[in-house]
Amino acid sequence: MPDVGIVKLPIADGGEGTLDSLLAATGGERITVTVTGPLGASVSASYGIIEQTAVIEMAEASGLCLLTEEQRNPGLTTTYGTGELIRHALDRGCRRFLLTVGGSATNDGGTGMLQALGMRLLNRQGNPVPPGGGSLADIATIDDSLWDPRIALSSFVIATDVQNPLIGEQGASSVFGPQKGASPETVDLLEHGMTAWADLIEAKTGIRLHERPGAGAAGGLCGAYLAFFPASVRRGIDVVLEHVRLEEHLDGADLVITGEGRFDHQTSSGKAPMGVAQLAKKHGVPAIALAGSVGSGIDVLHAEGISSVHGIMNTPMTLQEAMERAPILLEQSAEQVIRTFLAGRASKP
Amino acid sequence: MPDVGIVKLPIADGGEGTLDSLLAATGGERITVTVTGPLGASVSASYGIIEQTAVIEMAEASGLCLLTEEQRNPGLTTTYGTGELIRHALDRGCRRFLLTVGGSATNDGGTGMLQALGMRLLNRQGNPVPPGGGSLADIATIDDSLWDPRIALSSFVIATDVQNPLIGEQGASSVFGPQKGASPETVDLLEHGMTAWADLIEAKTGIRLHERPGAGAAGGLCGAYLAFFPASVRRGIDVVLEHVRLEEHLDGADLVITGEGRFDHQTSSGKAPMGVAQLAKKHGVPAIALAGSVGSGIDVLHAEGISSVHGIMNTPMTLQEAMERAPILLEQSAEQVIRTFLAGRASKP
Repeated sequence: MPDVGIVKLPIADGGEGTLDSLLAATGGERITVTVTGPLGASVSASYGIIEQTAVIEMAEASGLCLLTEEQRNPGLTTTYGTGELIRHALDRGCRRFLLTVGGSATNDGGTGMLQALGMRLLNRQGNPVPPGGGSLADIATIDDSLWDPRIALSSFVIATDVQNPLIGEQGASSVFGPQKGASPETVDLLEHGMTAWADLIEAKTGIRLHERPGAGAAGGLCGAYLAFFPASVRRGIDVVLEHVRLEEHLDGADLVITGEGRFDHQTSSGKAPMGVAQLAKKHGVPAIALAGSVGSGIDVLHAEGISSVHGIMNTPMTLQEAMERAPILLEQSAEQVIRTFLAGRASKP
Repeated sequence: MPDVGIVKLPIADGGEGTLDSLLAATGGERITVTVTGPLGASVSASYGIIEQTAVIEMAEASGLCLLTEEQRNPGLTTTYGTGELIRHALDRGCRRFLLTVGGSATNDGGTGMLQALGMRLLNRQGNPVPPGGGSLADIATIDDSLWDPRIALSSFVIATDVQNPLIGEQGASSVFGPQKGASPETVDLLEHGMTAWADLIEAKTGIRLHERPGAGAAGGLCGAYLAFFPASVRRGIDVVLEHVRLEEHLDGADLVITGEGRFDHQTSSGKAPMGVAQLAKKHGVPAIALAGSVGSGIDVLHAEGISSVHGIMNTPMTLQEAMERAPILLEQSAEQVIRTFLAGRASKP
């Protein structure tokens, strides 16, 4: 179909990988710097500058992907490197920031990040506390006398779909601690420290993060952004779709094809393809989804703008085979889906 | 979609199962009688009467499905029961016949069938030869003095896609003998007998079956039909589609959905969905195929009228799971395919 124009837009939902997607879609600049990793050792981490907005993906500097299974330890891991990335971008002159918070290895309440930007967090003896969630209970004083003044002059958008508060059964420590390596006992310690930290923030700023939805994202990093930054939270996919200018591309488009590894009724809350479909629906463009796996209860997706969902398997096979063959399966099924769409288009109503 | 009219037409390609499909599609009469099975024991076999045409499926009386693996023996198996079915239909007054020849257990050159209808096949001593492909070489005389006179007053259509001749490397014994239980030595004996039988037919009737395409179908049963019946051969699917009146239903239809267990480049020769698609194309109706498995090289199908081919797997799974879940997978994928077709239909060209 030589007359057909195709626009390819890499999409992410605001989680890990969002930086790469945005850079691929927009041709922004990738800046790679050496920062403090989650356990203190130096790591090479990237951020992006896209139309004067710095895109800081916390997982680049402080992500679970930087650690082995054995190294996971939310009592020790720090967001310090994330703060260094922000500082580097500030030094480059950036004053608009997009902060993604998925894939964190940390439960330090964002304390490392704050310290990297000049916030002094002192114990009762007046000494700086060591990094990690295990030290939160020791913080007695938040001293912002050296806090980077450029932050107040900047704007920060936090891209996240996480609704967990900072404290409690649905809080950062209880829900995300275990997958970051915390034992049940460690979770209790982390919860204790995070509560003290939230109390201290409330005393210092008047901002109460304990029950605030989203404050628990990235081990409380999001809470620190909300308390100390001129920051607002947006749904990840909305921010991404804005940056890749999906709505402009939808104008005059005939068909949107999107996809996801697995599609089921849980897909409807904020995931990337639903965001794509909702915008497509707004513009009256049909959106068809391709998926490696299609679960039950997908009726709800149709109401939200997904015209149809097609599995890409072409024969019985194992998950391993499916993953290895995904590119060709995707290509073949996309062709057939477009053929079906065109057969309908050629059909007289 | 309460306004949509659906016409369901069971389709077969002229092979085994064609009788059931035709009866389901047309509401014809099923007649079940007791006849001689492939190894002599009685079997219960059905034929159909559809609008005054008798549909005789040879596998009902003389099929491989009636034997265990151990019982397979093309030196002994006979088509006698098939002849009995024809005679029963003649007795009922039928004078038009549709003969399907798939799934045979026999390599007797149709001798059993002929005997059941009055043909006397005698050895040099003037005695009737015993049943089975192993006796073909013993036949010295074809005596048609008692041959059923009603056959010459009837018309017979043989539904088959088989192009194999009666004799030779591509002949009935060599190609189909082994799957019917013949060892390499038995194949040689069968070939020897079948050659003598073909020579005898040529001497008696002037009809040379040796190299005739299709004469080798059903262990030479088709050759006997061609030599002794007022019979013509048609592509199986064409006969079936005519009986289910597909063309009438296509008139005014918006979409045809067809399917097959496996779709690949080999599907293009005479198989059921291609026959459906070719007629759909003739009437300007798009045809979409659903398949459990979609192989490579399906581009050729598009040229012949298949708009698109969709696999029905919704996730990685084993063949066993796929077969167990086939009904629901088919239902779910059909819904999504129709949604895609309708999305195209609603799209402004």
